[in-house]
Amino acid sequence: MSDALIARARAARPLITPTKRGSVAPFLVMDVMTDAAKAEAEGRSVIHMEVGQPAAPTPMSVRKAAADALMEGQIGYTLALGIPELRQRIARYYAEAHGVEVPISRIAVTMGSSSAFILSFLALFEVGDRVAIASPGYPAYKNILEALGCEVVFIETTAATRYAITPDMLAAEHAKKPLKGLLIASPANPTGTMMTPEALSALIEAAQDLGIRFISDEIYHRLSYGMTCATALQTSDDVVVINSFSKYYCMTGWRIGWMVVPESLTRAVECLTQNLFISAPKLSQMAALAAFDADAELEVIKAGYAANRKVLLEGLPKAGLTRLLPVDGAFYIYADIGHLTNDSLDFARRMLAETGVAATPGPDFDPYGGMRAIRFSFAGSTEHMEEAVTRLTRWLT
Amino acid sequence: MSDALIARARAARPLITPTKRGSVAPFLVMDVMTDAAKAEAEGRSVIHMEVGQPAAPTPMSVRKAAADALMEGQIGYTLALGIPELRQRIARYYAEAHGVEVPISRIAVTMGSSSAFILSFLALFEVGDRVAIASPGYPAYKNILEALGCEVVFIETTAATRYAITPDMLAAEHAKKPLKGLLIASPANPTGTMMTPEALSALIEAAQDLGIRFISDEIYHRLSYGMTCATALQTSDDVVVINSFSKYYCMTGWRIGWMVVPESLTRAVECLTQNLFISAPKLSQMAALAAFDADAELEVIKAGYAANRKVLLEGLPKAGLTRLLPVDGAFYIYADIGHLTNDSLDFARRMLAETGVAATPGPDFDPYGGMRAIRFSFAGSTEHMEEAVTRLTRWLT
Repeated sequence: MSDALIARARAARPLITPTKRGSVAPFLVMDVMTDAAKAEAEGRSVIHMEVGQPAAPTPMSVRKAAADALMEGQIGYTLALGIPELRQRIARYYAEAHGVEVPISRIAVTMGSSSAFILSFLALFEVGDRVAIASPGYPAYKNILEALGCEVVFIETTAATRYAITPDMLAAEHAKKPLKGLLIASPANPTGTMMTPEALSALIEAAQDLGIRFISDEIYHRLSYGMTCATALQTSDDVVVINSFSKYYCMTGWRIGWMVVPESLTRAVECLTQNLFISAPKLSQMAALAAFDADAELEVIKAGYAANRKVLLEGLPKAGLTRLLPVDGAFYIYADIGHLTNDSLDFARRMLAETGVAATPGPDFDPYGGMRAIRFSFAGSTEHMEEAVTRLTRWLT
Repeated sequence: MSDALIARARAARPLITPTKRGSVAPFLVMDVMTDAAKAEAEGRSVIHMEVGQPAAPTPMSVRKAAADALMEGQIGYTLALGIPELRQRIARYYAEAHGVEVPISRIAVTMGSSSAFILSFLALFEVGDRVAIASPGYPAYKNILEALGCEVVFIETTAATRYAITPDMLAAEHAKKPLKGLLIASPANPTGTMMTPEALSALIEAAQDLGIRFISDEIYHRLSYGMTCATALQTSDDVVVINSFSKYYCMTGWRIGWMVVPESLTRAVECLTQNLFISAPKLSQMAALAAFDADAELEVIKAGYAANRKVLLEGLPKAGLTRLLPVDGAFYIYADIGHLTNDSLDFARRMLAETGVAATPGPDFDPYGGMRAIRFSFAGSTEHMEEAVTRLTRWLT
C-alpha cells in the first residue's frame, strides 16, 4: 500500500467504543450538581441538599494527625490490609461499641467503602451469580455488581416495611431462582430507615439458612436518632461487613474505610488487595487512627444533624411534603412526592431553578418508583435547613 | 426443628469459601519482606532491594502543599475525574514534555495506577476477551485481568528483544487466536528495559492494524538513563495511557495517578469512576499538583538512582551476577541467575539469610523462566548499593 492509502485506512479505523460492562449509568444527581454550580456562579443562593457528605470539615485532631504524619515524610505503601495500629483500633471499636471480639486478621483497611465493595464482590461472587439488593438503594451497588458481571436482583421495598427486606421477601425471591448473595444497609441510603437489631439478625439467619452470602453495609453507623445500630457481626462471623470513615467521621475525601470478613476469606482479600489496590492511602490511615478519638467534635456535628432532622420533619409536611417517614439514621429524608408529580427529575430541576434548593431525584435510587420520590440530605447547617423549609413552603403553597 | 437441632444445623454450615476469580496469587516478594522484617527485628542489617518504591521521602514542597490543603479543612469528594487544576496541569505536562496536546476531557485522575488498570480493563474488555502482556512483567497485570474475567495471553520475551514485544510476535500470537488487547510498559518492570520511540510507535500501529486495543503503562516515565521516554500519545489518540505519581515523584503511599483515554471512552470512565471509586483522595490530588514543580528535588533523587545503577552494573558482574542487561530505565535490574541456580526462591531466601540482601525472586514476574531470575530494586541509597555489592561478592565468590 502507498503511504496515502495506509493513512486513509488508518483514518477510517473505527473508534474504540466502551464495553457493555463498562457502560454504567451516570448518577443523575451529577446533573443537579452541575446546574447548582451554574446557579451559584450566576450569584444565586443555593442550599445543597443533594450531596451525601457532611458539610462539616474533618475534625481538627484528625487533620493534625495527618499533618504530623506528613512531616515524618515517608508516605510509602503500607501492608495491603492496612497499618496494624489502625486494624487494632478498629477491633477495639467493635469490642467497645458492640461487645464483639474481632481478630485483626479479619479486618482489612480499604479505600473508602468503594474498594471494599469491589473486593467483597470479587471474593464472594462469580460472574453470573445473582445478588439481591433493596430498591430504593445506593445506586453504586447495582452498578459495581453489574460491572463485575453479577446479576442484580432488586427486591422492591416500601414504607410498609420501612424499606427493609424481610426474611419472607428474601425467601420468596430465592424460591423464584436461587440467590448467591444479599447486600443490605442499615441505616439505609436514600431512605434513612433502619432495621431493629432483631430484624437484622433474623434476616442474616434467614439468608444463611438459604446458603445466601450476606454483606452488611454499615457506613451510616453511629448516625442514628434513637435506634440502636447493630452490626451483623453480633449475629454471625460468617458475613462481610463494610464500613467507612466518610460519614460519621466526616472524612469523605480521604477515601478510607474498612471491611470485616470471615476468617475463610482473609487470604483472598489480602491477595486481591495487593494486586488491585496495593494499599489504602497511608496519610488517610494515619488520620483515621485519630478519628476514633474525635468523639467530642463529632458528637457536636451529629447533634446538628439531629436538629436538622427535627426542622425538616416538622417543616417539610407544612410545606406540603407530607409523605415522609420519620428518619431513623443517616442524614437523608426520602420524600414520596407522588401527590405532586410523576416526574421527580423535572420536579428537582424546577425546585432548584425556582427556589435554589438542590436535592437528588429518586431514579438514582429506584428505577421503578423513583420518578415519584426525591431525597434531601440534611448534612448541612441548621440555618440552611430552616431556609430550605421557608423556600419550599413559599414554593409549594 | 428444636432449638438444639437448629443450632447444630447452623454449626454445620459450610464456611464461605472464596470464589475462583477472587483467588489470585499472592506476591512472593511478600514472603521476602516478612523474612526481612524478622531479620531486622532480630537486629540484623538488611539492605532492601525487594520493594519497588523510592526510599526517598515525598519532596518537601509536595508535602507542604498537602499540609496547606489540610488546614483548609474541607477534604471532601472531588469531581470523579479529579480536580480540574490537576487535570489541567497534567495536560500541560504532555504539552511541555512531549509536545502533545491532550484536552483535559481525556484525562482522569485515579487512585494510583491501580484503579486506572481496573477502570481501563472494564471499559476496554469484556469477560472472556484475550489480552496480551509480556512475560516477564508486573504480576498485577495478570491478576487484575483474570479477576475481571479476561484471558491473559503471555507473550514470552527474552534478552534478545530486550524483553520487548515486537510487531511480529504480536501478529503471530493474534494469528493463533485473536487478541482484544495489548498492555505494555516502557520502562518495564522487572527488567528495566525500554523500547525506542520508533519501536513503541511501530507496535502501536501494528496493534491498531489488527484491531487490538492498546494500553501503555508509563508509570516509570522520567526515570531513564539516556534513552527517550516516548508516550504512546505521540503515536495515537486511540490508546489508553496509564501513569502515576508513585515512582518518579516519590508518592507511592498517596495512591495517586492518572490515565489518558480516547475521547470515545471518557464518559464510560467517568461513570465507572463515580460508581467504583467516587474520586481519588483529595489531599493526594492537591499534593500531586505541586509535584510537577518539584523537579529540583526529584532530579537529585534520580541522579542517585543513576549512581546506584552504575555501582550495580559494575559491581554485580564482578560478584558473579554476569547475566544482566544495561538498565535503560525504572530502578530495577533483572538478573539471569540460571548459571547459579534453578530455584530463585531458594536463592533469594538464602541470600537474605546469609547476606542480608533482600531481592524479589523471578516467579513473581514470570511463571516460566522466573525460577532462574531475580530482581534487584535500586531505589535506595548509593551507600546501600555499594554494601550490597560487597556482601554479594563475598557470598558468591
